[in-house]
Amino acid sequence: MSIDALQTRIRKFKNPSMLGLDPTPELIPPHLIEAAYAQYGPTLKALGEAYRVFCTALLDELSDVVPAVKLQSACFEALGWEGVKVMQELMVYAKELGYYVLLDSMRGDVGNIATVYARSLFGEFEAQGEIFRPYACDGVTINGYLGSDGITPFLPYLQDNSQKNIFLIIKSSNKSSREVQDLISGDRIVHTAMADLAMRWSQNLFGKCGYSEIVAVVGATHPQTLKSLRKRYDRLFFLVPGYGAQGGTARSVQYAFDRFGHGAIVSASRSIIAAWQKDEASDGHDYLQAARKSAEKMRDDILKFVTVL
Amino acid sequence: MSIDALQTRIRKFKNPSMLGLDPTPELIPPHLIEAAYAQYGPTLKALGEAYRVFCTALLDELSDVVPAVKLQSACFEALGWEGVKVMQELMVYAKELGYYVLLDSMRGDVGNIATVYARSLFGEFEAQGEIFRPYACDGVTINGYLGSDGITPFLPYLQDNSQKNIFLIIKSSNKSSREVQDLISGDRIVHTAMADLAMRWSQNLFGKCGYSEIVAVVGATHPQTLKSLRKRYDRLFFLVPGYGAQGGTARSVQYAFDRFGHGAIVSASRSIIAAWQKDEASDGHDYLQAARKSAEKMRDDILKFVTVL
Repeated sequence: MSIDALQTRIRKFKNPSMLGLDPTPELIPPHLIEAAYAQYGPTLKALGEAYRVFCTALLDELSDVVPAVKLQSACFEALGWEGVKVMQELMVYAKELGYYVLLDSMRGDVGNIATVYARSLFGEFEAQGEIFRPYACDGVTINGYLGSDGITPFLPYLQDNSQKNIFLIIKSSNKSSREVQDLISGDRIVHTAMADLAMRWSQNLFGKCGYSEIVAVVGATHPQTLKSLRKRYDRLFFLVPGYGAQGGTARSVQYAFDRFGHGAIVSASRSIIAAWQKDEASDGHDYLQAARKSAEKMRDDILKFVTVL
Repeated sequence: MSIDALQTRIRKFKNPSMLGLDPTPELIPPHLIEAAYAQYGPTLKALGEAYRVFCTALLDELSDVVPAVKLQSACFEALGWEGVKVMQELMVYAKELGYYVLLDSMRGDVGNIATVYARSLFGEFEAQGEIFRPYACDGVTINGYLGSDGITPFLPYLQDNSQKNIFLIIKSSNKSSREVQDLISGDRIVHTAMADLAMRWSQNLFGKCGYSEIVAVVGATHPQTLKSLRKRYDRLFFLVPGYGAQGGTARSVQYAFDRFGHGAIVSASRSIIAAWQKDEASDGHDYLQAARKSAEKMRDDILKFVTVL
């Protein structure tokens, strides 16, 4: 799916938000883990099954509300290969339901290793004439600290025929992001230097919507930065993480959008998938209803500040 | 294994080098893939089996030559969960053979996701009273662009009782590493700012050998940078990638070591695991002998410039 297709889905849903699937044992309703332990014993396979049941149900529940989904690789990798297997299957399922699927794995390596990443994620991983595509994703998050060598292997897949995206970390949502990302160098800040690189890599990679297939990740927790980056980089689409549990609000994320209400998507994970925990009386059996309510509230809150034309 | 234990192994082996396991279909002898395809059909499972056979044999062959091994996560992840499964098993096997085991996965996320990484890699991943340890590694490579929030969850595991290490990317071996890592900010360069952070995070994390449990990754391809960083950061142990195929030489890596020949380890991947390809007449059946010869030559070349006391 290209940046145009993502923007089109956002307009169709009238919802510029993204569901983050970051399952951990603490966020999942206890009865799901108990049921899986009862069936498979207390194993990583059981936990993987609990994650599968939980995430599949959330994908089903929210497929008419949220246009895009982000799978947090770390959460699945934490279970070893049995988690990775579930993650791969969830990606396929989310694609079937029509979601834009982002793999949030913060990739970042160089040279032939970056090529291995790009091929296995987006292209065709080839071995003695056989072609494999283990990951069904539209986009992947990338850390650009290593420079162009880590990015260029992905660029061929961002063209029209492949329609993939990379999401480059520009300014992360955490407090200590300033330690490196806000260092000042001449007339630039390190994170604007990174955004400048994103623009340089974007040559010939602009969709009909005007935005680059390289998406900038800018945290919801820095409204002033969002504002100034939106102005300075009017051809970079923004993914805005850190909404909800991390402190970002509808008021703060409004600055990520252009005057048509385009050019950005806001992601939230815990505040949706673990919404059931906000009700102290809940034992988790109502996690789907709670998630839907939270996702709809997030959409409605953002739409108070942003009109998606 | 702590930094002291790694330094001790290097001294015992008289070899400050690390074997990089970066398997790709192009680097593996064709007969191994053919045999696996014959047994399992042309599948990712078959490729995983070929990787397993290849890497297991290399670990066996080199266990008396090389004190440490680095598994490139990207190469195994490229096969999906069937590759990750092989990687997990190889880590366990490498530990059994006594190797220091580094997972090269360039982790880097923040907050509760960094905590998930740290727990699953180093600690005890807990779910409803059950404890899991899917990854048998001593260390992991980390990208610090996101700042302290991505690092602090790992620090408890770097204490005496856990004896793990993190390997922080300071200055990578690729050419375009200068684009971000060499930006100048005041009297610092971005990569020295990162090294300063490594020192700040190292409080109370120094081994008996004098070096921090936080290792600095500095590419073999920048001898002048190695020299100046060695002088400025005399309490950071260096992992020096980029030897061999990427252009680093014994002459260039000598600057990574202190006057006792301590404080650094040099990694090489392709130049060892695919050494058989340097002989045009080879069909790959001699890959183990070629790897041993290359690993011994690398050791001997480094020891021409560095005396490990």
